[in-house]
Amino acid sequence: MPDKPSLRSLTKITQEAMSEVNKVILDRLQSDVALIPQLAGHLISAGGKRLRPMLCIAASMAINKNNVAPPKSALYLAASVEFIHNATLLHDDVIDSSDQRRGNKTANAIWGNEASVLVGDFLFARAFELMVETNDIWILEKLSAASAQITEGEVKQMSMLGQPDSPISDYFSVIKGKTGVLFAAAAQTGSKVGNGGDELNSCFHQYGLALGNAFQIMDDALDYGASTKQIGKDLGDDFAEMKITLPIILAWQDSNNTERGFWLRTLKQGNQTEADFDKACSIINKYNCIERSLDYAEAEANKAIEAISNIPNIELREALVETARFAALRDN
Amino acid sequence: MPDKPSLRSLTKITQEAMSEVNKVILDRLQSDVALIPQLAGHLISAGGKRLRPMLCIAASMAINKNNVAPPKSALYLAASVEFIHNATLLHDDVIDSSDQRRGNKTANAIWGNEASVLVGDFLFARAFELMVETNDIWILEKLSAASAQITEGEVKQMSMLGQPDSPISDYFSVIKGKTGVLFAAAAQTGSKVGNGGDELNSCFHQYGLALGNAFQIMDDALDYGASTKQIGKDLGDDFAEMKITLPIILAWQDSNNTERGFWLRTLKQGNQTEADFDKACSIINKYNCIERSLDYAEAEANKAIEAISNIPNIELREALVETARFAALRDN
Repeated sequence: MPDKPSLRSLTKITQEAMSEVNKVILDRLQSDVALIPQLAGHLISAGGKRLRPMLCIAASMAINKNNVAPPKSALYLAASVEFIHNATLLHDDVIDSSDQRRGNKTANAIWGNEASVLVGDFLFARAFELMVETNDIWILEKLSAASAQITEGEVKQMSMLGQPDSPISDYFSVIKGKTGVLFAAAAQTGSKVGNGGDELNSCFHQYGLALGNAFQIMDDALDYGASTKQIGKDLGDDFAEMKITLPIILAWQDSNNTERGFWLRTLKQGNQTEADFDKACSIINKYNCIERSLDYAEAEANKAIEAISNIPNIELREALVETARFAALRDN
Repeated sequence: MPDKPSLRSLTKITQEAMSEVNKVILDRLQSDVALIPQLAGHLISAGGKRLRPMLCIAASMAINKNNVAPPKSALYLAASVEFIHNATLLHDDVIDSSDQRRGNKTANAIWGNEASVLVGDFLFARAFELMVETNDIWILEKLSAASAQITEGEVKQMSMLGQPDSPISDYFSVIKGKTGVLFAAAAQTGSKVGNGGDELNSCFHQYGLALGNAFQIMDDALDYGASTKQIGKDLGDDFAEMKITLPIILAWQDSNNTERGFWLRTLKQGNQTEADFDKACSIINKYNCIERSLDYAEAEANKAIEAISNIPNIELREALVETARFAALRDN
């Protein structure tokens, strides 16, 4: 019986390059203004999976049949992508007034919103400085467009708050913006600096987009307890913040009038009591909405796998297939 | 007797191009997410002097002896610079929790901090998309570096809050970051797209930096009533926010122990009563700190004028000299 899909193979292939990427990240966090590396370092060194830079590095290694160290510009690009991601996290924490991220206190809980807004801006600017070092205007075009789309996704998510009757297509347009496009740009531009050629770059764009969507759908499902094994993740954050995610939209569509009244009270009027999250989960389970969300994640994962079926580096291809399977794993 | 220096000559020379720039600005504010053009339009259409894009356009017209319409890339660049500026304004208003800007309600007062953070990010991303259209990586290098320095200046300003004993050099490093570098980059990159050549680009960098500094010093002095004729500007904002600007630093240096006690109570402990702003102004006036601030502004204006003494377009040169004089005008 094969092992459960994990990020292990991808991590192994990209490990050496990623340790170089980490050096670039630490180096470019430096500033004469001491608070900047202090605050940004707090977030970035807390880690996370480093999925986006890993994907960028992987894509830059796809053209060769064997694993060859990626060009230096791939390291800059990977660091740049991680900076953009962390800039959006800093700003998200301001927006959500979050106190915790990745099991640690958020920067805004320690240093205040002002610092989080500014250091987010700093990371974003540094990301563009790093991109410039690839000396490739096409890359700047793709990543600046992706950056604009990320904020469009976030604004759209904000304007959907409290509206459980939103169509599924709106949800997909939000997750494409807030997650998919940066995965797509990371993969596509990684392929480009690895001399991938138009066709390969485009395959990686599709792969990244679908993979990012799958991860986001899974993340949103986990918030309603897709698995009880999940550690270090607080359930119910999205519910408390009245975010409209896929399990909610699916549940709303099937809900009877009493249940719709519940959704309107808790998510539209924001009138929640302690027992409401359990009640929400029970309606979600009644209509099988987690399982059905995971079907959507699996469909995205399959699209991702299909997109890279012809890349030259076989070992990498297998690792990327496994990564996509991991993104839609039912007992994550 | 010559007319009082104003922005009229510069406005006239750049008028035709600026109306094209405004079209680009309105066009690039568009988004499928309705809140974005709504919120950003509220700020951008409120106007302001459009100094930075005007400077960018002017610099792009410097190489020819006569006024020739600037290249299309100058229009994109000018719009880009205005977007960066407005992104920082949106984020500043979040940071300062401001209710008013340019005599209007601020975006965050109407739509909330969340939207202001995100739309600021959107404008910043769009700025980079516009820069990409100049197809010139050197320009992206200069403007991404300037963007990082802006946030460094703002963070430094934040870390100086409540410290009236800060050295003057710290103040200059803050205003260079928060204002000077964007003026410098606007002028320098404008010159570049106008085919200015290395030497002219560098002259415009110096001009922009000194001009930006002069405007910021003047702005900071006006906050303590440099002139009673000033309309539409609320006095005392910086004092209320405990910002450490040049008049305060100069006053602190000359203050006796009782007066230092006053500064520490009002600016360090933030313990202010209604009468305190008048008291602050009277200490500032006792030590002639507005006049001495304006000397600094004048020195910057003179540096600016010196920097562009050899540019080929004579009519433009005169307009730029007048602009610099306007920036240090004593009865603004």
